[in-house]
Amino acid sequence: MSPRAEEVIRRVKDRLRPSPEERRAADDAASRILGAASRALRELGIDGEARLGGSYAHGTWLAGHADVDLFLLLAPGADLEAEGLRAAARVLELAGASRVERRYAEHPYLSGELGGVRVEVVPCYRVRRGEWRSAADRSPYHTEYLLSRLTDDLRDEVRAAKAFMIAQGVYGAEIKVRGFSGYLVEVLTLKYGSLLGLMRAATAWRPGEVIWVEPPQGEAPPRGASTIVVPDPVDPRRNLGAALSPWSLGRFVLASEMFLEDPREEMFESPAEPGSPLSLEEVASGALSIVIERPEGPEDVLWGEIWRTMRGFAGYLRSRGFAVLASSAGEDDRTIAISFLLESLECCRWRLRRGPHVLMADARRSFLEGAGTRGPIWTGDDGHLYSVALAGARRASEEVRRALADPVRVAGASRGLEGPLRSARVLEGEEVLRAGESVRRSISALASGRPLA
Amino acid sequence: MSPRAEEVIRRVKDRLRPSPEERRAADDAASRILGAASRALRELGIDGEARLGGSYAHGTWLAGHADVDLFLLLAPGADLEAEGLRAAARVLELAGASRVERRYAEHPYLSGELGGVRVEVVPCYRVRRGEWRSAADRSPYHTEYLLSRLTDDLRDEVRAAKAFMIAQGVYGAEIKVRGFSGYLVEVLTLKYGSLLGLMRAATAWRPGEVIWVEPPQGEAPPRGASTIVVPDPVDPRRNLGAALSPWSLGRFVLASEMFLEDPREEMFESPAEPGSPLSLEEVASGALSIVIERPEGPEDVLWGEIWRTMRGFAGYLRSRGFAVLASSAGEDDRTIAISFLLESLECCRWRLRRGPHVLMADARRSFLEGAGTRGPIWTGDDGHLYSVALAGARRASEEVRRALADPVRVAGASRGLEGPLRSARVLEGEEVLRAGESVRRSISALASGRPLA
Repeated sequence: MSPRAEEVIRRVKDRLRPSPEERRAADDAASRILGAASRALRELGIDGEARLGGSYAHGTWLAGHADVDLFLLLAPGADLEAEGLRAAARVLELAGASRVERRYAEHPYLSGELGGVRVEVVPCYRVRRGEWRSAADRSPYHTEYLLSRLTDDLRDEVRAAKAFMIAQGVYGAEIKVRGFSGYLVEVLTLKYGSLLGLMRAATAWRPGEVIWVEPPQGEAPPRGASTIVVPDPVDPRRNLGAALSPWSLGRFVLASEMFLEDPREEMFESPAEPGSPLSLEEVASGALSIVIERPEGPEDVLWGEIWRTMRGFAGYLRSRGFAVLASSAGEDDRTIAISFLLESLECCRWRLRRGPHVLMADARRSFLEGAGTRGPIWTGDDGHLYSVALAGARRASEEVRRALADPVRVAGASRGLEGPLRSARVLEGEEVLRAGESVRRSISALASGRPLA
Repeated sequence: MSPRAEEVIRRVKDRLRPSPEERRAADDAASRILGAASRALRELGIDGEARLGGSYAHGTWLAGHADVDLFLLLAPGADLEAEGLRAAARVLELAGASRVERRYAEHPYLSGELGGVRVEVVPCYRVRRGEWRSAADRSPYHTEYLLSRLTDDLRDEVRAAKAFMIAQGVYGAEIKVRGFSGYLVEVLTLKYGSLLGLMRAATAWRPGEVIWVEPPQGEAPPRGASTIVVPDPVDPRRNLGAALSPWSLGRFVLASEMFLEDPREEMFESPAEPGSPLSLEEVASGALSIVIERPEGPEDVLWGEIWRTMRGFAGYLRSRGFAVLASSAGEDDRTIAISFLLESLECCRWRLRRGPHVLMADARRSFLEGAGTRGPIWTGDDGHLYSVALAGARRASEEVRRALADPVRVAGASRGLEGPLRSARVLEGEEVLRAGESVRRSISALASGRPLA
């Protein structure tokens, strides 16, 4: 059907398939960690069991990125954070792992290195299907399910799909990316039989599309968002698409369509550009950036706060009359930048204020007092009070600086970023082109219509 | 409690109470029309019955505004427009009425004059409670209900309430006003015992407030809008507040609050001004008006089309990047003006386009082709495609003139106004101050935060 596309994907698959040496190294690491786990559980007298999971166990990891996940399945009464982490630490110690550090998902886990291979030891509960107690409890079932379905050909296709999504910036379920999880890519590839099949299907998905990988056994599908609904084959009430952002889904669909029309191997290396990027100078002419010190703490928490704060300031700027055309974030080692593309850095002749619903008596009275006697006051079609009056133009940067004095209350910023925001820097216009790495990344994200760079 | 408010309302009530002479004239007209109706029905061999209704029958009309409504209750099989209108014409003829003309509600009816008193003859069906076939069928039940409840004191209060609402521009259920119907004022006054009671209650209403005038007999209230829900005492599934616009409700609440704080008799003569009006020059600096020839046809149809067209053009201007702060309509004998207050008559550096949902495959492809290669394309949080590119500034008046070539398709205008819109004039800025009556009225409506003047 599309010999060129198939030829491109064949080359990509060859390149992504781990070499026999890499497999051996990963297998070595896996047996060492598995052996260490048995000893550790016995030694600590813990009622538990060790299982391999993730891309190593599924055989779907990308050449050069071996990553062995070990799940410690504890009895449902156990304390994952105390008992679980102690066991994980002992496992890594007995295996002789280096660079051990604590990481965070729903619960903390440990990561380390073993003969050049990254290993992760994740405590969870040993439960029956459906009796999930922690998010990781499904993993052994996922592995069991995939091992019963995946062939080596499908593993090649999964790797190609992951590489395509990585290049497009839509791979990974972490809050920062809100993309496709590894498991979601695996089941979608299973469902459609190949990456090309998945791409073709994606370009025909409808809003709220329900994708049953296994035929439903009478279950209703989970409630859908505005993206897609993919019932987890091992737990059909769970939607694997729930964490997928509209941006990520949309980018995958657009990139798939571009690849199907014009199959290019570069699309497995760098992002497609739907439309054409703006120049950085064009963006700078309407750009405003808020730069904060990067706080300590788990990445998922931090990025949840960043996205919330971005939405908060976008809404604040709109409420002050500024047209916000796009928003993005950028990061470097020390700072985070949140940037906005505005119709204009200065605004407005008029000030339109939207107040409370006219039938909220207390709020109505404060609004009437606050609006004072400048301009008429009326009730709009949405039942809310409005007032409009001529006002001097204001700079967006001044408005944002004012909000930064009390960012949570005034701009709806995330409470966790309150400290960094109070000492944030605000840049606008050409200043953003001479700023640090995080700002320049956020500006280039705006230029490409991306939320992140 | 509020002796000044009570004193003001007492004076208003004295002024609004019809004189004995006016009552006699109305009674005369009523008995003549009632007698003529019996003769007409007999003469035409129509199975029907005549009943007085409306403000005359309820005894709630305002001095100087007597208005006798006669309902011709026909058998449910009858044809209201043929048989009903023929009977109505004969009634007015036999009564010796002058200036007979056809008017329109849900069904047509006739209006005429009898000894200086306006009379209306309205055909409807004689049905049992709840078996309504036309909107007017409830009227005899309304009259029966009110006659069993209203005292002369309450009639005085109803008159004061009507006068207050007339002065505030919120009286009348017609589409043009979307205010309080006469019957709604009557039942609300009944409910709260006086105009002051109604005003005090209104300032404490909550969004979606359900106001049972008679205690519910186990019925669920009708579904509410964002205003208030007033189950009709004779048909509790019907919401008497359904046709009330948020603007009208809001203006009544604000004016009530202003009156309770500072009771002034002028508020029964001319509108309160919540906040303070803008000057006409201020409004003109951001005003754009569309002026059309006034088409023939029933007022309710025309105003439905005007409001729809206003919403359509407001949405169109917003989609072209203009910030629409307020909208209004104005009329004179020959023309209708639809006016907008815009942040700026010229806009924008950037052009942000919102496309279809990314998963609507056909629409997505047209959007991608249409957006071409100018600027990036991405999927927003709402799942829709967006693109942004630098664009030259455009004048609002040019954009509107372009839309007027195909106003229904391009701007979502009402089909019924398509002809007049194609030959509409567009005015902007100071031009609106030198224009005809309809434009100047719409501009003064904008200045006061009113939808209409």
